[in-house]
Amino acid sequence: MSTYRAGIVGASGYAGAELLRLLAAHTDVDVAHVTGASSAGATVASLYPSLAAAYPQRSFAAFEPGDLAGLDIVFVALPHGESQQLVPDLVGKVDHVVDLGADFRLPAAAYEQWYGARHSAPELLDEFAFGLPELFRDDVRAHAHVAAPGCYPTATVLALAPLLAGGLVEPTGIVVNAVSGVSGRGRGLSAPSLFSEADGNVNAYGLLDHRHTAEMELALGRVAGSDLQVLFTPHLVPMTRGILATCYARPAVDGLSSTSLLAHYRDFYAGEPFVVVLDEPPATKATFASNAAHVTVRFDARTGTVLALGAIDNLVKGASGQAIQGANLVLGLPETAGLSNVGILP
Amino acid sequence: MSTYRAGIVGASGYAGAELLRLLAAHTDVDVAHVTGASSAGATVASLYPSLAAAYPQRSFAAFEPGDLAGLDIVFVALPHGESQQLVPDLVGKVDHVVDLGADFRLPAAAYEQWYGARHSAPELLDEFAFGLPELFRDDVRAHAHVAAPGCYPTATVLALAPLLAGGLVEPTGIVVNAVSGVSGRGRGLSAPSLFSEADGNVNAYGLLDHRHTAEMELALGRVAGSDLQVLFTPHLVPMTRGILATCYARPAVDGLSSTSLLAHYRDFYAGEPFVVVLDEPPATKATFASNAAHVTVRFDARTGTVLALGAIDNLVKGASGQAIQGANLVLGLPETAGLSNVGILP
Amino acid sequence: MSTYRAGIVGASGYAGAELLRLLAAHTDVDVAHVTGASSAGATVASLYPSLAAAYPQRSFAAFEPGDLAGLDIVFVALPHGESQQLVPDLVGKVDHVVDLGADFRLPAAAYEQWYGARHSAPELLDEFAFGLPELFRDDVRAHAHVAAPGCYPTATVLALAPLLAGGLVEPTGIVVNAVSGVSGRGRGLSAPSLFSEADGNVNAYGLLDHRHTAEMELALGRVAGSDLQVLFTPHLVPMTRGILATCYARPAVDGLSSTSLLAHYRDFYAGEPFVVVLDEPPATKATFASNAAHVTVRFDARTGTVLALGAIDNLVKGASGQAIQGANLVLGLPETAGLSNVGILP
Amino acid sequence: MSTYRAGIVGASGYAGAELLRLLAAHTDVDVAHVTGASSAGATVASLYPSLAAAYPQRSFAAFEPGDLAGLDIVFVALPHGESQQLVPDLVGKVDHVVDLGADFRLPAAAYEQWYGARHSAPELLDEFAFGLPELFRDDVRAHAHVAAPGCYPTATVLALAPLLAGGLVEPTGIVVNAVSGVSGRGRGLSAPSLFSEADGNVNAYGLLDHRHTAEMELALGRVAGSDLQVLFTPHLVPMTRGILATCYARPAVDGLSSTSLLAHYRDFYAGEPFVVVLDEPPATKATFASNAAHVTVRFDARTGTVLALGAIDNLVKGASGQAIQGANLVLGLPETAGLSNVGILP
Repeated sequence: MSTYRAGIVGASGYAGAELLRLLAAHTDVDVAHVTGASSAGATVASLYPSLAAAYPQRSFAAFEPGDLAGLDIVFVALPHGESQQLVPDLVGKVDHVVDLGADFRLPAAAYEQWYGARHSAPELLDEFAFGLPELFRDDVRAHAHVAAPGCYPTATVLALAPLLAGGLVEPTGIVVNAVSGVSGRGRGLSAPSLFSEADGNVNAYGLLDHRHTAEMELALGRVAGSDLQVLFTPHLVPMTRGILATCYARPAVDGLSSTSLLAHYRDFYAGEPFVVVLDEPPATKATFASNAAHVTVRFDARTGTVLALGAIDNLVKGASGQAIQGANLVLGLPETAGLSNVGILP
Repeated sequence: MSTYRAGIVGASGYAGAELLRLLAAHTDVDVAHVTGASSAGATVASLYPSLAAAYPQRSFAAFEPGDLAGLDIVFVALPHGESQQLVPDLVGKVDHVVDLGADFRLPAAAYEQWYGARHSAPELLDEFAFGLPELFRDDVRAHAHVAAPGCYPTATVLALAPLLAGGLVEPTGIVVNAVSGVSGRGRGLSAPSLFSEADGNVNAYGLLDHRHTAEMELALGRVAGSDLQVLFTPHLVPMTRGILATCYARPAVDGLSSTSLLAHYRDFYAGEPFVVVLDEPPATKATFASNAAHVTVRFDARTGTVLALGAIDNLVKGASGQAIQGANLVLGLPETAGLSNVGILP
Repeated sequence: MSTYRAGIVGASGYAGAELLRLLAAHTDVDVAHVTGASSAGATVASLYPSLAAAYPQRSFAAFEPGDLAGLDIVFVALPHGESQQLVPDLVGKVDHVVDLGADFRLPAAAYEQWYGARHSAPELLDEFAFGLPELFRDDVRAHAHVAAPGCYPTATVLALAPLLAGGLVEPTGIVVNAVSGVSGRGRGLSAPSLFSEADGNVNAYGLLDHRHTAEMELALGRVAGSDLQVLFTPHLVPMTRGILATCYARPAVDGLSSTSLLAHYRDFYAGEPFVVVLDEPPATKATFASNAAHVTVRFDARTGTVLALGAIDNLVKGASGQAIQGANLVLGLPETAGLSNVGILP
Repeated sequence: MSTYRAGIVGASGYAGAELLRLLAAHTDVDVAHVTGASSAGATVASLYPSLAAAYPQRSFAAFEPGDLAGLDIVFVALPHGESQQLVPDLVGKVDHVVDLGADFRLPAAAYEQWYGARHSAPELLDEFAFGLPELFRDDVRAHAHVAAPGCYPTATVLALAPLLAGGLVEPTGIVVNAVSGVSGRGRGLSAPSLFSEADGNVNAYGLLDHRHTAEMELALGRVAGSDLQVLFTPHLVPMTRGILATCYARPAVDGLSSTSLLAHYRDFYAGEPFVVVLDEPPATKATFASNAAHVTVRFDARTGTVLALGAIDNLVKGASGQAIQGANLVLGLPETAGLSNVGILP
């Protein structure tokens, strides 16, 4: 069987490197070309010696659309605002684009509201599916291109979706309290990303208006079939990878119990290869380097609150793994190709 | 000026060792005797080489009430359930007891409800003040003995108290989402305390019914002047020290703003040596090894929610520092003696 | 093609869990039976939720030789002294045993000298090959059973072997200064393994007489063709996985240079799938979760010293990955089956 | 008693912030002025919220020599090459300069050799003492200005000095294998300082020619009374603070034993407030945030090697604490003023 030829734009960042790692083990996709603006000319192995054996001679190239023309699929792993500049040059030249950034996840109006800037390629938004296969699989298959969801939204939406799909909780008053490992800040240089600042430290950031709120409200609202409001508080914690979303919602029906909710979650996610419903609170480390999401749920009768928790690896299910999962769908490959649901622990 | 003579019961655990560290720099209190059940006979320096220079020859003794008789003050740092067994032997023999455990913080009925066991010394409960000086300073001074609050309640109550004292939020629907460093689990041996399990991991635990909920409801209810309900979700994060409480409450009045709330917090804590009100989200690392609590507050007009955050070092303001602060009060010393509000960063 | 059926004795420790993780992706080997003394009856997923998706129903059994009889291969991951007790019950009943402990690595006399106890199954020692394929591949293939080398010896021997094979350094005066992540201590409960003790800490241990010295001297002596002496100083560092060996030796020939030594290393390891010779100092993280060893070498003309460095993941190339590599050899499978030379970074 | 007025040049880096932390508790020295080039105008509390309570309103100023004129003492915490540019403007205007950088530690020729640049103020070198009080106390007192030693040399020289002072080891063939926490790289932004790169990683760097080699050879040679040669290999380990030097030397006399060496070390350092000689291997964490150095020593009769180990906090005894210790000496204050020998553990 012939393999598909892939390109990666922005391959020198952490999401790009994770694509390189995962695709090295993907038997149906070959990495044909990689670009990295600030690292152009450097070898992959010099930035990521972990990849030395798999890509011994490969270097990052400067971005030239012509170098990517004719590829079956191109992954774009760039900061928001940058993808929309170059994706228009790609969509006619390659069969599929999977964007890992925020540029093609939201409608133009929502993008402008949350990102404070006009979208420069709004005409392409309808060609991209919101790439969360567990909830929108058919929609992904029906599109040529995929906008892979953000890390926080992935953990949050998978944790809360069964509640909203079932009409079990109110669409307002939802609180999402989440933590992320430092790799979520990327490979860019900034003081809060320094080991000496992040080690031994937890702090919240982006209070009240973190942009991932928009994705959560959009995706969960689609599941709920109604408008929906989330208060989201992200925190940085001293680990490299992992996201845990701890979510609070108000019940919309009587008679809930933890037992019945857990059964509902197991039904909802039955057969999903990458969602594991646990009785116990999920641990980020159990998902390390895997494409799995671990979730659980509780009902607190004392305070009348539903508690839902979801853990993922932010660089895999929260970025590159999910991007490959979406790529598999649009390429017609088995959805699990090249992906694992087994974490690395300890 | 003469110094006070102190004993420490349970000195070989982390809270006990932290008392030894802090008292080594306290010019008005001498450590006269230290006990440690499982470590009896071992030198302090063998368990804590950090203390070798300050306590070169000191060993942990087995607990004998007679060894402590006549001391001015005894700190008791034992697991819950154990203090109440031996405190009755101490209260007549020493001037002051400061208990760092949970045994003398709650009324007998609440203790039984949350700890699932009858209190064995209920007649002594009234002799202990709930030792959170910023809120109950006069009450502490009016008692002989002090029950130092738990780590999570300290961070949470200091973060939320100005809201409840001012009647600004509802006493129900309060959500407390908090993280703790691994030292909060103590020096006892268990798999979740292992480096290889905790490193790179975050998970929630004690869902719905963690015992510190009772202290939060008690202390905040006292501040609010009414019954009060908290849903508390603790998490373990991969750092040694530090607690961050991220708290959500519903406004009880109109016209709130982040600016007005910050001003209210600054008024409320004016002159407090150990509370710092910050514009920015507090970072646990900024309080490392200090007795300071860092807090901030926000009002989210979009979702109608008040957000309050508090950070402390769980072993200092959350345990041994606060115990010394209480001891200073009952001994008539300056409240800040032997304590620092400067953290260690990086 | 039919698959081989494997058992794991001591599967609940870290090396055992890593075998379970790696074999889940090994298409030619099925895990038929797993035992775990202290965890008998517990599910794999309860100890290692990372494995929940791969082993949803599997439990650890108590060890019964009859349960393993007839299997093609049994991996034994037990503390030293325990394998030799039960391996005699296995060797006649299963085709191949791969022991991950120290019991079958040394001749009986050396075992007694370094481990301070008589070997209880010396008659079996000749049936086990020292399982370092890069140096002793044919010898491994010629045996039925494999003693997988220790973690420190693997990193050290791979770093130094090209020097000794070439007669380039003296067989005495070799200093090995190595660091290990905390998982090297296993899942057993002890104070130095606690997060709060290991985090932020480095200390040496086992000064002068660490038992892995014997393996290093044996394996390197075999390569050198002469007796050989190593002074080995291990250190614990605050990370979960990884070993870095920094080795010092005295030149035995004139005219060495870093350039010529690097060329010699590249020749020596040409074609080896799991050894990467780097120009730059190797980083443990580049080998994380992979079976790769990264090495480099330098000659310091100023002090007349050769410096060789080797990095591995202690649980993979230093334990379970190398055990599978050895298993592949004795089973006649491709040596790389089920193993990766790509690390996980960040 | 009146206090001395101090300035800090380069106060926004980690060594500068640590000076601010330590001087906040120093009752004889007031911080009168602080400068920080890249942070000029920012408040101390915005970069270091840990210092918010001690320096609530203080800001970093741009460097102007006139602002510092008349101060009793000025600490200079700048990258090498920068101190020598501005110290000439200070030496006539302030009583004492304590330089924490490398510019005034070496003779001009050695500086040029190791740093690859001509020294721009060689005429001032004789006015600076090499500020390691335990070995050169009288020399420090006899100078107006102090060059505080580097972090690696401090740990190494304190570990090895008793051997060389006693003529017990050879002055050649010395190997120093050391590890440092990431704060040793400072607050500057670079990829190896990122949490996601440093976490879970150990690697050597500066192979063969790290500049601290020169200081080690200079200081130890002065102790030995002869020329001396060191091969030094530094490593980065995933912790914020701490240095451990593991040193190997060849005996120069017969009849050594670990017992006799330990007794010799205890004699050598008798009465030193900041050196603790331990029977057990020192742990970096035991020195955390303190000015203490912990050392031990062994003789390996098997390989004929002396092993000496030293641990310090790189930002305290390896930088700012030692600078204050030197300042105390030149100001005529008690050498221990404002400094602690108690570490923070856990």
